[in-house]
Amino acid sequence: MYRSHTCGELRIEQVGASVILAGWVQRTRRMGGMTFVDLRDRYGITQLVFDEATKKELFLQAEKLGREFVIQVEGTVAERSSKNAKIATGDIEIIVSKLVVLNVSETPPFTIEDETDGGDELRMKYRYLDLRRNVVRKNLELRNRLCFETRQYLINKDFIETETPVLIKSTPEGARDFVVPSRMNPGEFYALPQSPQQFKQLLMVAGFDRYFQLVKCFRDEDLRADRQPEFTQIDCEMSFVEQNDVLEVFEGMIKTIFKNMKGIEFEASFVRMPYAEAMEFYGCDKPDIRFDMRFVDITKEAQTKDFVVFNSAEYVGAICATACAEYTRKELDALTDFVKRPQIGAKGLVYVKYETDGSLKSSVDKFYSQDDLKAWADKLQAKPGDLLLLLSGEKQKTLKQLGELRLEMGNRLGLRDKNVFAPLWVVDFPLLEWDEDAQRFSAMHHPFTSPKPEHVDWVKTQTNLKEVCANAYDLVINGVELGGGSIRIFDKELQAAMFTCLGFTKEKAEYQFGFFMDAFKYGAPPHGGIAFGLDRFVSLLAGLDSIRDCIAFPKNNSGRDVMIDAPSLIDDEQLNELNLMVNLPKD
Amino acid sequence: MYRSHTCGELRIEQVGASVILAGWVQRTRRMGGMTFVDLRDRYGITQLVFDEATKKELFLQAEKLGREFVIQVEGTVAERSSKNAKIATGDIEIIVSKLVVLNVSETPPFTIEDETDGGDELRMKYRYLDLRRNVVRKNLELRNRLCFETRQYLINKDFIETETPVLIKSTPEGARDFVVPSRMNPGEFYALPQSPQQFKQLLMVAGFDRYFQLVKCFRDEDLRADRQPEFTQIDCEMSFVEQNDVLEVFEGMIKTIFKNMKGIEFEASFVRMPYAEAMEFYGCDKPDIRFDMRFVDITKEAQTKDFVVFNSAEYVGAICATACAEYTRKELDALTDFVKRPQIGAKGLVYVKYETDGSLKSSVDKFYSQDDLKAWADKLQAKPGDLLLLLSGEKQKTLKQLGELRLEMGNRLGLRDKNVFAPLWVVDFPLLEWDEDAQRFSAMHHPFTSPKPEHVDWVKTQTNLKEVCANAYDLVINGVELGGGSIRIFDKELQAAMFTCLGFTKEKAEYQFGFFMDAFKYGAPPHGGIAFGLDRFVSLLAGLDSIRDCIAFPKNNSGRDVMIDAPSLIDDEQLNELNLMVNLPKD
Repeated sequence: MYRSHTCGELRIEQVGASVILAGWVQRTRRMGGMTFVDLRDRYGITQLVFDEATKKELFLQAEKLGREFVIQVEGTVAERSSKNAKIATGDIEIIVSKLVVLNVSETPPFTIEDETDGGDELRMKYRYLDLRRNVVRKNLELRNRLCFETRQYLINKDFIETETPVLIKSTPEGARDFVVPSRMNPGEFYALPQSPQQFKQLLMVAGFDRYFQLVKCFRDEDLRADRQPEFTQIDCEMSFVEQNDVLEVFEGMIKTIFKNMKGIEFEASFVRMPYAEAMEFYGCDKPDIRFDMRFVDITKEAQTKDFVVFNSAEYVGAICATACAEYTRKELDALTDFVKRPQIGAKGLVYVKYETDGSLKSSVDKFYSQDDLKAWADKLQAKPGDLLLLLSGEKQKTLKQLGELRLEMGNRLGLRDKNVFAPLWVVDFPLLEWDEDAQRFSAMHHPFTSPKPEHVDWVKTQTNLKEVCANAYDLVINGVELGGGSIRIFDKELQAAMFTCLGFTKEKAEYQFGFFMDAFKYGAPPHGGIAFGLDRFVSLLAGLDSIRDCIAFPKNNSGRDVMIDAPSLIDDEQLNELNLMVNLPKD
Repeated sequence: MYRSHTCGELRIEQVGASVILAGWVQRTRRMGGMTFVDLRDRYGITQLVFDEATKKELFLQAEKLGREFVIQVEGTVAERSSKNAKIATGDIEIIVSKLVVLNVSETPPFTIEDETDGGDELRMKYRYLDLRRNVVRKNLELRNRLCFETRQYLINKDFIETETPVLIKSTPEGARDFVVPSRMNPGEFYALPQSPQQFKQLLMVAGFDRYFQLVKCFRDEDLRADRQPEFTQIDCEMSFVEQNDVLEVFEGMIKTIFKNMKGIEFEASFVRMPYAEAMEFYGCDKPDIRFDMRFVDITKEAQTKDFVVFNSAEYVGAICATACAEYTRKELDALTDFVKRPQIGAKGLVYVKYETDGSLKSSVDKFYSQDDLKAWADKLQAKPGDLLLLLSGEKQKTLKQLGELRLEMGNRLGLRDKNVFAPLWVVDFPLLEWDEDAQRFSAMHHPFTSPKPEHVDWVKTQTNLKEVCANAYDLVINGVELGGGSIRIFDKELQAAMFTCLGFTKEKAEYQFGFFMDAFKYGAPPHGGIAFGLDRFVSLLAGLDSIRDCIAFPKNNSGRDVMIDAPSLIDDEQLNELNLMVNLPKD
């Protein structure tokens, strides 16, 4: 037996007990004739005492212990003279009677502390040491907990977790697939799933009624901070449901998770905001509603004078930053620089300071009178002391820019507290979006999303396609799209019409989705579902900026695992068996 | 709202209630002026009644319903005049007042019944219809339940479920990897994991203390009935443990699962049988101990006369088949044919009938006297009426053949009841086995398995390698190897010695396992673990002959998914992006 207790377990009640502990040396301190060792494991830290006076030999052994040595000690629990209220075992210490070094350690390349001196790259290369840090491991514990809470909720609601295959068929639509050459079927390839979409729908055809799966998905995309080539979804599907049924079940899931994991109770129903409203007043389809600061359209009011910038604009929009009239020139310049960054792309920023004395001061004073500015301020329900920020131009672009500015102001004003959570359903998405490059429509969610019943005829007759609304919904929390889904098409005629809208010939649709449409011939039930990004969900709950820190072994932005050094070259023999040749571009 | 209740929910208490149901038409029956429809969903079957006399139009509509149509009905719950005690809803029926056909169905290619008329191939092609059958879906429900019970048990024991990556690095050792070309790293490949072995050990180095994961693993092997290219493991690892700690935790898991899922309580501890004993008395390392019938070595007793077959044999072994002395010539010939099949390869079978009158009759009566035969019978503790079956030859081969014969006799005698479960730990495996082809040792489990403490020196000094015992163990139930694991090496010197035993040069070990051995420099704790085959576990609990029926979408013996038709050709554009060329063998 390596231990009788963990390093987080002993309390004042155990004083006098003989115990065996094992763990890592966090640090050693010499004080007079005593050496104190903090012994660490996942569960906590326990202080060990080695006394030179009574146990000289042990004391000398302890002096040789280095950071991260793995040791086992036998000893007696004693009450500490100076207690440490910060840790659960802070009332006691162990008077050591036997010490065994189980394993030595070289000096780690960075300190194993909450605040480490290790840079990102080093931490990734030695990820197994980074994971020793409490702050990192806690994220993984949270992830485990979230997964279990999710399963418990869904299984209680009669969902069956069902594994779908990882080796599937490549479909050229959408993002790029990772492929897997098949040795047994020369020249042919499997693909790794971007999502189990078709399989979960087939499970509905199969009468499974309620399916879910916590499932790895794969996308061969160029990576960003919050993208990984492999990621995990909470993938769900239900039969005999309308949109409201799905929203209720999963709103219940989110509420249960927040209650059980964060002690937060959302009493009211989540806001349901139409897509059009989100775009018009927040400039994006995933508004952060922890704070208000909605856009106000002042196009009409702004186009009354000779200011050509506004007069030539399709749209002039404004937000009101409470109590920011005192912003300095420097602060306003910083905001202007912010909106002019290429990622945002505004030409400039107009401000109106509504001074506390009631006067108005703006960057467009030459063009507008105090009354003009007052009228804008009134439309924004601004109060003296507030600051108006205006952007103008082509409407869709300006809304997007204003959305970025709004989030920036939210940050500056401390309105985006990581401990506050504001959930929201965005509903009534368009079914299709026009793809300028391909000169055809593409599916905003995916080709299996159903149109609203009142728009079915438009799809069948290929009319008003831009106006068709989908039975689609996203769950957004704090500006993060946590999940999305839709009620699916379950009628094979409508599905065929949808493929026509997307520019598929009958042959191409048959080639790509033949088996799937075949399945719909045999009594497909009405069904719909949703998928949540697990990595994002954990990040949100843990207050992380990147999903990387909630993944045990993440990849970097080139898709590399720098710890194991993957991907890597493989043997020619392996390539031959797979009937493949590598054909690197010359130069 | 599509339904107020499921098809398995209504009882006599609800008589008089207005309800809405939805589901599939299982069958329709016309009886006089009534049409009865069995409406089916996952939860059960409810009988619908359409009465010609009172609702002519509905009655006519109902006449047109075909098998597997998806319908929705409104109606009133009524008590049945002739109740059906076989189904939970058998006391009631629904007097239908409204019928909506939600979807039609073509006639399915096979019947959706427990006993279907569909052959294997057809069922796989239309797997979504096969999964509609109760008997198939129940296996998947069982699988879901098993996964949840497993998680609940392990999480209660402080295990953290942690996802390890699917895109990892290829290691040429062991079975063949599936590989995934990396577009972002031209010419390089990821591999899909055969198991997360190294990652779970790294999590121990990371101080996770207790890890588990229900995880997909991949092996590019030629397939058999119980092999799939992708399969699922319950993968576990613990720190600061010795073999007994691991066995106790997982024996507890198995007991909990059997208790909660099958109502079976194993009160005693599982038998722990050394590998050598299993081989000597059952001829295999996964004995089915639902029945006894141990081998008895009668080499000495058999080599007393002029029977050259026995005299030239290294080993003569026998089993005693209770009350089989009455076997006919035909039955004995069938057994002889059985052992002579090429897969088994015995040259012949010797029998001794211990007749009820006390006389003995054998196929070697020419050579042995009644006293000789009686001595054998006594050594096998046979009783009048029993049958002795003897095989002889090279010892290892004969033991294996006798093992097959024993199982066959178990089957014939009905001693292998699928509802009886006999768990067993096989322990004390050899660490290494001699690979005749490669003329070197290979690891019996894997290169990270530790030798018994008393054999560590042999490994370090490369002596007695055939005799080295491993800290390795398998869980066997009913002759199925359900799981296996070991206590790992955690000392980098011993690990290096192990690689030397396996014929690795220092450079090759460094190239293949460098990062892993690096990790062991920084305070690796003692650790060990186990992995269970989930698919096998479900099969065992469900009493299935193949793992295929507990997998939602399995592949066939050529690794094909015949439903989606994968693997398949991919576009040249995809190949170009991956810098690959397909190079099919000519002819």
